[in-house]
Parts: sequence; C-alpha cells; structure tokens
Amino acid sequence: MNAIGRKMENKLTNLLKIKYPIIQGGMVWCCGWQLASAVSNNGGLGLLGAGSMTPELLREHIIKCKAATDKPFGVNVPLIYHEIEGIMKVIMEEGVKVVFSSAGNPKTWTQQLKDHGIIVVHVVSSSKFARKAEEAGVDAIVAEGFEAGGHNGKEETTTMTLIPQVRKATGLPLIAAGGIATGAGLLAAMSLGADGVQIGTRFALSEESSASSPFKKRCTELQEGDTFLALKKLSPTRLVKNPFFDKVKEAEDRGASAEELLQLLGRGRSKLGIFEGDLTEGELEIGQIASLIDRIEPVETIMKQIADEYNHSLSLLQKI
Amino acid sequence: MNAIGRKMENKLTNLLKIKYPIIQGGMVWCCGWQLASAVSNNGGLGLLGAGSMTPELLREHIIKCKAATDKPFGVNVPLIYHEIEGIMKVIMEEGVKVVFSSAGNPKTWTQQLKDHGIIVVHVVSSSKFARKAEEAGVDAIVAEGFEAGGHNGKEETTTMTLIPQVRKATGLPLIAAGGIATGAGLLAAMSLGADGVQIGTRFALSEESSASSPFKKRCTELQEGDTFLALKKLSPTRLVKNPFFDKVKEAEDRGASAEELLQLLGRGRSKLGIFEGDLTEGELEIGQIASLIDRIEPVETIMKQIADEYNHSLSLLQKI
Repeated sequence: MNAIGRKMENKLTNLLKIKYPIIQGGMVWCCGWQLASAVSNNGGLGLLGAGSMTPELLREHIIKCKAATDKPFGVNVPLIYHEIEGIMKVIMEEGVKVVFSSAGNPKTWTQQLKDHGIIVVHVVSSSKFARKAEEAGVDAIVAEGFEAGGHNGKEETTTMTLIPQVRKATGLPLIAAGGIATGAGLLAAMSLGADGVQIGTRFALSEESSASSPFKKRCTELQEGDTFLALKKLSPTRLVKNPFFDKVKEAEDRGASAEELLQLLGRGRSKLGIFEGDLTEGELEIGQIASLIDRIEPVETIMKQIADEYNHSLSLLQKI
Repeated sequence: MNAIGRKMENKLTNLLKIKYPIIQGGMVWCCGWQLASAVSNNGGLGLLGAGSMTPELLREHIIKCKAATDKPFGVNVPLIYHEIEGIMKVIMEEGVKVVFSSAGNPKTWTQQLKDHGIIVVHVVSSSKFARKAEEAGVDAIVAEGFEAGGHNGKEETTTMTLIPQVRKATGLPLIAAGGIATGAGLLAAMSLGADGVQIGTRFALSEESSASSPFKKRCTELQEGDTFLALKKLSPTRLVKNPFFDKVKEAEDRGASAEELLQLLGRGRSKLGIFEGDLTEGELEIGQIASLIDRIEPVETIMKQIADEYNHSLSLLQKI
C-alpha cells in the first residue's frame, strides 16, 4: 500500500495531462496568458480568467497562450457572466481543451462543451452542488472553502470540512480550493482525499499575474484577520479590509438591505481595486491565506517551492 | 528523512505522555470523567470540562477520573469563568497534571500552575495570541479555527490557514483544532505542521459524552450548512440552526445591538440545549464537521477508526 517513493500520478493528473496536481485559479483581473502559460510550462494547469474579458480579448489571450506553451491550459468561466454566449463561442472556435465553470448551473453548458471534446470542471461550495455537477456530466469537481478569496458559498463550509464531504459524495477527480498556497497545504488537501488543488491567491500575487502592483503589494502585507467575508445579503465575497470594506461593514452592522448594499457596491469595483490598484475605493478580492504570503515571486519559483515543501512535509509524517 | 514505518513520537506525545497525538476538547456539558477517562484509556488525552462545573463537582469528577484511568488526563478551564478561583484551587489541591486554558489572558494563571508542576496549554485563534501565550510561559498551544463549535475567534481564520501561521510564530508543541474528526483530518493537520489535534465535536457525540441524547441525535443528523457562526457582536459562537438561532439571525439581519442580543440570549442556554436537550430554545454548540458524523459510537471505536484511517490515508500519499 505504501506509495512513498513513487512519483505522483492520479486520475486528475491523467485527466488533465499535467505533471503536478496543481491548478491555477482563473481569477478575474489576474489571469491572462502570461500567468496561465507560466503555470502550464511549470507543470501545473494554467487558466485564463474569462470573467473579466470580452470575447475578443479572451480570443487574443488564448492565441497568445497557445504560442507561449505547448502544454495544456484552460479557461475559467463564471456561468452567470453577461457575455457568456460570446465567451463560449470563442472557447469552442479556438479549440480550448479545458473549461472550469463556476457561479451558475452546470447543466446549461456542460453537454455542449463536451460534444466539442472539451474537458469540463465545475466549481462548487457543497457536496449537494457537487452531486448536481456530476449529474450534469462534468469530468471533475473543484470544492472551494470559506477561506477562498472573492465570491464564496453561502454555507461557509471551510476547506477542512468541505473536502471530506465532497469526497464522500462523488468519485470524480476532486480539486481542493481555499486556503492552499504551499506544499504543506497541498499535502493537507491530498490527506483529506483530494486529487489535487486549485491555488488562487498565491498565483494572483505572482510576477506573471496581471493584477496591479499596488494590489499585489498590499496583499503581501496582510496580517491574519485582514480579509473578511462581506456582502452576505448579495453574494458572499471575501475582501481585504480597506475604506470601502469599512463602509460595507458599517452598513451591514446596522442591518442595511440588499438594495442598499447593491447601491453601495455600484459597478466595476473589483476592476478598480485589483486591476487599477485603487486601494481605498476598490474591492480587493483575495483569499485568507494571503497573510502567509510576504513576497511577489515568479511562477517558476512558486511551483518549485510548492513541490519541494510537499515532498519535505511528506517525509516528516510518521505512522501512528 | 522518510519516517514512514516508524511509530509516531513527537514533542507533544512526549510532553503529555500519550500514545496518540489526540486531545479530547474540554467542552462544556459534555466532558465528565466518563468521557475523559475513556479517551485517556484509549491512548489520547482526556479533558474534564470545568467551564460547566462548580468547583466541588469538578473535584468529584477528578477523583472519579483518577479511579477510572491510570493514564494522564487534564482539565479545560475558560479563564473568564466566574468560579475560576475555586476551580483553580481544586485543580491544584487534587494534583491535576495538565490544564488547558482558554478564553482569557494566559498571564493570569500560567506561572502559578507551573509552580505546582502542572503542564499548561493555552487555546488561541491567531498567531498573535499564540505569541502572547508563549510569553506567558505555556508549554503548548492549541490553535482553533473558524469551523470549531461554540465560542470562536473574531478573525474567522480557518484551520487550514491558521495552523501554518501559528507554526511560523512559535516553536512550542502545536495542537490543531477545528474541523478535525477523522484520521484523514488528523493527517491533514500534521501535514500543516501541527504536532497533534484537539477533537471536540466527534467526542461530544460519543457514547461517553454527558451531552443529552436529543442533542447528540440532532447533531448526527446535521447536513452541511446546518451550523453557523452567530452572535458576532457579543462573542462569536458556532450554533446549530434551530428556532433559537433563527431568532438570533433575524435580529442580527436587522442590525440588532449587542445589548438586544444579550437580552435575547439570556442565561443558561447552552445547558438548556446541550445538557437538557431542548432543541428549540437551547443554544446547540457544535462544530461544522458534525455534518460528517452520522452515528454515536464508543470512544474505543472512535480512537481505533481515527488511527486506522490515519495510517491508511498516509499510505495513499505519493511523492510529487
């Protein structure tokens, strides 16, 4: 039974044809061809983040990503995105091999994508949604915990409690997300029964990320408790505590309605914060694990560190 | 380096003189001598929960626990408890070997307990508090994440993100808590750098737990999302969603003040819910991981399952 010494190969690495069971989360405003191709070239699966692109911009990034890597890469698509039709058309026209879908009903697009030979992975926050995604025919599941950055499930189930539940609910390849940024985190996720991990925050703060420098710098300075799940009456979103967050908190503490919060949020705040670097009025979406990250590094360094730390942490484990 | 095959022994098992690095959380209304002695007799460290006992009742449980096991056991003491002076007096008079302190300043009692030869372990929810506990002279740290039941930190840091932070902050023996109920959870915690775990929920739902049958039964039926962190304007507390919780939620959603929430909470609700089994008006404190537990078992079975699953999960891990 003891497989120590053998190099990792499992149903996820086989499905996605990757060396390491590490997926780079396809976050808005961070994930262009530079980041996705760097992750894929270093043994993981890079994802373009279509949620902050027009269809034509996505096409440009797909073409550049193909030129920059001969390894597999994918596209993350929030299914509730207003340009979804155009995005899916580009994905199919450009022969993208892998789609990670999130924030919406997996039944809507899964079959059509699969008919085009595309591998479909769906992001969920509960085992109930994992079962629904399996019924819709997806090839793998991302289960994302409460500690993840940005948009988040309503049930607030953490990665530590979510992964064993989803593992029980489905036999599909399972990717753990939320709170994972290191080799020790990868090892913990594999211990819980995952077949791999999706890492957002650490890659959002890499050199190749398209996020603005002020955003990246601020995020590497965060301490524990500096992100918080807010906007629960709209769509729960993990944000850095900044002046904009303070306004949201003040409103929520006095019982502000969803309508008032929507008004306060307005439009374009995640672009303002992440891409344009407005640290005061922007919505700064990042995971809780940012407090562990204190520098901006190239993807090559990050991947090497994760693999080395994983193997080292594994070597320290003892039988009980 | 690879230690697989060797039986576990580390600074925590050496400090506490236990076979398995498993501590039973000293929860209110669950943890009398029956539970604590069963855990200690099966290779872990059992804790009496002084937070729901008078000093004289605690003395009775200590005496019975000594009679029921020749293995080490300890007492959990919330430092803000109104009977703290009497509780500490009994602990010192009865020659208790280990104290787990929580909810209060570790400076107040640590030195006095250590002068009596008592091992002191303090429960924290952040690396800042871990450093303060180390300064106060404690022998080990419990770091407890957002997913834990009952009273909880204000920063909402989950176990997956908290453990690596506290590991960086202190070289003391580190016990992970929150969301851990199985061998896979134990393995995940050890992967993150912990030296052991504190398990609350699973033992609260064991045969030997003093919690009422209706409470235990209800908790084994919980689904994901059925517990929630509430009462954040008082002291954040993870509760089962029941009619009492609904009242709290309704009040919080409309911005109720701390004073109003205090009035609504009243006194004795955790006893009413956990010990007396009032599932409607009681405060039902349990961890998020309860949704993974579907039966009430004896401690012996639980400990064996955790150890077997830990070893099995470890055998499945591969190098990267």
